[in-house]
Amino acid sequence: MANPLLSDRDVDFLLYEVLEAEALCRLPWFADHSRETFDLYLRSARRLARELLFPAYRPMDEAPAALRDGRVRLHPAMKEIQAQLASLGVVAASRPAEVGGQQLPHTVAAAASLYLMAGNLSAAGFVGLTTGAAHLLESFGSEELKRTYMDRMYAGEWTGTMALTEPQAGSSLADVRTRARPTPEGHWLLDGAKIFISGGDHDLGGNVVHLVLARIEGAPPGVRGISLFCVPRERPEGGRLVPNDVRVTGLIHKIGWKGLPSLALAFGEEGDCRGWLVGEPNQGLAQMFQMMNEARIMVGCNGVATASVAYHEALEYARTRTQGRPLGAKDPARPQVPIVEHADVRRMLLRQKAIVEGGLALVLAAARLADLAERAEGEEERRRAHRLLDLLTPVVKSYPAEAGFESNALAVQIHGGYGYSSEYLPEAWLRDQKLNSIHEGTTGIHGMDLLGRRALAGEGAGLKLLGAEIAAAAKRAARAGLDPAWGEALLAAAGRVGEVTLELAARGMAGDAEGMLLHSTDYLEAFSLVAVGWQWLLQAAVAREGLARDTASAAFYQGKLLAAEYFLKTELPEAERLLALCRSGEDSYARMKPEWF
Amino acid sequence: MANPLLSDRDVDFLLYEVLEAEALCRLPWFADHSRETFDLYLRSARRLARELLFPAYRPMDEAPAALRDGRVRLHPAMKEIQAQLASLGVVAASRPAEVGGQQLPHTVAAAASLYLMAGNLSAAGFVGLTTGAAHLLESFGSEELKRTYMDRMYAGEWTGTMALTEPQAGSSLADVRTRARPTPEGHWLLDGAKIFISGGDHDLGGNVVHLVLARIEGAPPGVRGISLFCVPRERPEGGRLVPNDVRVTGLIHKIGWKGLPSLALAFGEEGDCRGWLVGEPNQGLAQMFQMMNEARIMVGCNGVATASVAYHEALEYARTRTQGRPLGAKDPARPQVPIVEHADVRRMLLRQKAIVEGGLALVLAAARLADLAERAEGEEERRRAHRLLDLLTPVVKSYPAEAGFESNALAVQIHGGYGYSSEYLPEAWLRDQKLNSIHEGTTGIHGMDLLGRRALAGEGAGLKLLGAEIAAAAKRAARAGLDPAWGEALLAAAGRVGEVTLELAARGMAGDAEGMLLHSTDYLEAFSLVAVGWQWLLQAAVAREGLARDTASAAFYQGKLLAAEYFLKTELPEAERLLALCRSGEDSYARMKPEWF
Repeated sequence: MANPLLSDRDVDFLLYEVLEAEALCRLPWFADHSRETFDLYLRSARRLARELLFPAYRPMDEAPAALRDGRVRLHPAMKEIQAQLASLGVVAASRPAEVGGQQLPHTVAAAASLYLMAGNLSAAGFVGLTTGAAHLLESFGSEELKRTYMDRMYAGEWTGTMALTEPQAGSSLADVRTRARPTPEGHWLLDGAKIFISGGDHDLGGNVVHLVLARIEGAPPGVRGISLFCVPRERPEGGRLVPNDVRVTGLIHKIGWKGLPSLALAFGEEGDCRGWLVGEPNQGLAQMFQMMNEARIMVGCNGVATASVAYHEALEYARTRTQGRPLGAKDPARPQVPIVEHADVRRMLLRQKAIVEGGLALVLAAARLADLAERAEGEEERRRAHRLLDLLTPVVKSYPAEAGFESNALAVQIHGGYGYSSEYLPEAWLRDQKLNSIHEGTTGIHGMDLLGRRALAGEGAGLKLLGAEIAAAAKRAARAGLDPAWGEALLAAAGRVGEVTLELAARGMAGDAEGMLLHSTDYLEAFSLVAVGWQWLLQAAVAREGLARDTASAAFYQGKLLAAEYFLKTELPEAERLLALCRSGEDSYARMKPEWF
Repeated sequence: MANPLLSDRDVDFLLYEVLEAEALCRLPWFADHSRETFDLYLRSARRLARELLFPAYRPMDEAPAALRDGRVRLHPAMKEIQAQLASLGVVAASRPAEVGGQQLPHTVAAAASLYLMAGNLSAAGFVGLTTGAAHLLESFGSEELKRTYMDRMYAGEWTGTMALTEPQAGSSLADVRTRARPTPEGHWLLDGAKIFISGGDHDLGGNVVHLVLARIEGAPPGVRGISLFCVPRERPEGGRLVPNDVRVTGLIHKIGWKGLPSLALAFGEEGDCRGWLVGEPNQGLAQMFQMMNEARIMVGCNGVATASVAYHEALEYARTRTQGRPLGAKDPARPQVPIVEHADVRRMLLRQKAIVEGGLALVLAAARLADLAERAEGEEERRRAHRLLDLLTPVVKSYPAEAGFESNALAVQIHGGYGYSSEYLPEAWLRDQKLNSIHEGTTGIHGMDLLGRRALAGEGAGLKLLGAEIAAAAKRAARAGLDPAWGEALLAAAGRVGEVTLELAARGMAGDAEGMLLHSTDYLEAFSLVAVGWQWLLQAAVAREGLARDTASAAFYQGKLLAAEYFLKTELPEAERLLALCRSGEDSYARMKPEWF
């Protein structure tokens, strides 16, 4: 059976049974939409993902983007993919009609993108980056920048990048050194080096539009002196495009995502790299956070998609590969059984299902919060959604990356010796997945962001909202007839997250920021288990309700209920140990000196 | 600083302070040895590993062994490596002098091999396989087989393989189909296909000697009808070597270990593949277990070595790469600090140290048990050592593979975006490590082996011995002045392992084998944490004693104490959750049906 990338039944379940995506159409902003338009878009994306993107995945993995004569050559399959993605209108799917978008809810656009990512992460990567960069121009750019760049980007003609990282600074944006000098003509002259710029060059035709963080001469040091510039690879001049002094200085030999080049770029080596200020001076980082927050949710989707495609591959393999016999029926004269019959293989598959479908529920829930934060009718509802989304963003970014990596490793393991060979695909997805714990902020950084900032924002307003959501899910689950112990366990764990947050905040208030944040990665992991547990409890409740109504889907709902049970009884209890560690003050690595290793 | 592969100070600590390797020289078998001969051998292996094997690692990873015209071409660097390894006498280092060996303790030979593995897993792989195969001939082969094959293998002239796996059978050895027919001349005619045969062909010169599991015509079905054969690639005939009808039918494109080819082989396609029976008919599997048990300990060493070299790489990177500033000292005008100063980076490094050095202590302890099991003076001491080694073998095999993979992933993570590129080595070691949870029995199989067989053998005699060892370590630690809570926590965890073992055994006795073994992978993981915890407690005790005696090593001992504290307070408590799961009866994946996924 061909790999479905994601389960259509599951995506429909999440969209229409759990998240009630159709209800979004009652909001004025989405009034022109309906389940029909959603499904039309989803169907097109699914088809494109399965028929065009996925078949190109292995060829692109085997023949990576390459640097020749200073220019990047993509795999030839990318041309057709890019054209088809443009004609589907993917780049601006969730953008307003007035800028040429389809004005679809993020919820639906994300679901569609997940198929594209699962089919071909690199191809989808160009889209996500372009959407994010164009959206920066939409939010903060001048009319001229919008007409010159944004329109073409949303139309899928030109692509975009985010150019933040520099070799000497890495994650430390305070140390960005790229300089911008004003000119009397109104543009700025850029000068500096960036690294790890995904999609920073290509041969697809069109242009590349870099959204660059740089420092205006004389700006304050640190993150308060960073501004945002629009810097095209070629600039329009006299009705044509001329080179803009942006040079590709190196191509990173990434271990995955091989169709999407990651580049080192030099801006202004010849003193003629022109950029245009986006928004106000020194507001660059604040503005870039719009794209970074979007990118974090996108990375969460990447992680889910990459775990999903591997899970489906492993599932099919386990259902068809015969080996060994059941315990207590070892007669070698009897035929061997499919390995899915072995309990430990089912354990690995159920763990993958729990991670993949729990992660999927979480990222789609986040997308729905993004819709409500922007488009809900009442100010209060918009604020609530925004707060909850803000809180969940580090979890949405990191859980699929970290748990997804384990899930991808299990897909390799299920394939046994074959999984260790590049004739099978799971190893490629394992390589792809590793990036997600690194780019757009490492897991460690997101742990500090969650505990040090987001969990405490508004006096813990986000945490209270999450608690209320969990309480509602627990009620619904019990009402549906599920063992109330499931909800109670989750509520207890959520309660402990709250207690630990307060304890640690008090430690920070008392001046011990190191002590407060010492276990922030453990905190993030525990928090993630609670958040994904919430999504599993909710799914279980809806599945239990569905079971009473829709007998044709009984197998699907039974699977949901068992995966929920597995997650809540096997994975969630790990939060207990992690939270105990957070509050224990265990500080071995704080006391460890570099020379003692 | 050049990567040391393993820490010499740590290896010396384990050999001479923890395991008291010199005391082995008081046993008659090792009477010709002394610390001087041990160190001489170790020094040579270290030098070879650092100066010859490690520099060839990346070239071999980049230009894998290839199949051309039906023959395997290794990387050219392998010729010199093979010659140097032969002249060091590595293949027979631990074999008796009477067969040309150096009669070194396994403890010392393993320590030396760990450097070779850390330097170049593939090159060391040829050695380990050859030792194991020749040892089968030493134990079970006729004089003629020993003179014809074993001698040349121990001398490093010919290499050996273990040929168990078949395409249709995988881990299920009961389904081995390769046939052997007797001939009046005394040899047998082999006929069948094998897959995943490491080192199954090469162009190093010399011969390849396969130790093949096959079924004598008319033998009983299943594992009771399997015999062991010596099947050379070329057979000696009339004073020269002639082809023996063994054909390479395919080369697996492995994702790591790229210098060591993994092959599909066809035996007897032309009806002229001759083999010689090793030992008695139908005893093949029992005999092969000698090599399999040795190979499992070897895999444990592979796992430790692969995690170790990556840990040292990450440590050096973290000490030299500057990025960001300490919490509370964010002034961007101040220089950035080495990332080892960040708590979360130290956490990742300390976790790696705990896994690497805990795993190293465990594999060397196992090697010492192998020495005592064979060479201790009293029958009772030999039996005790054998029992404990038998119990620990699945842990020795699996812990370094599983925890080592996490450790290797952390080495990538510490390198940030650079870690995701093949310009840096950590990603290569991550690929290498993945094999160790698959070959020589998957982790799932070892879980069942531990709980279903080894933990219960001799009415739990091994478990009782382990308990006594842990109690002794706890006493020693408290006497040395360590917080008695460390030992108490470990004793409590070990006690719970015992309780859970009895409970699960009772379930099995009552006829519920599925229920008994349902969580055997969780059981293996919990057991591993206790076993490695034991090694850390012991190391902490010895380090504390050393600190009072040897101030020049204070930094080293302090590091040991903190790593022990980290492990016992952070990793060990995870055993609690896992054991609770084992006894809970949580059976979601037992109830999950294949069609519900």
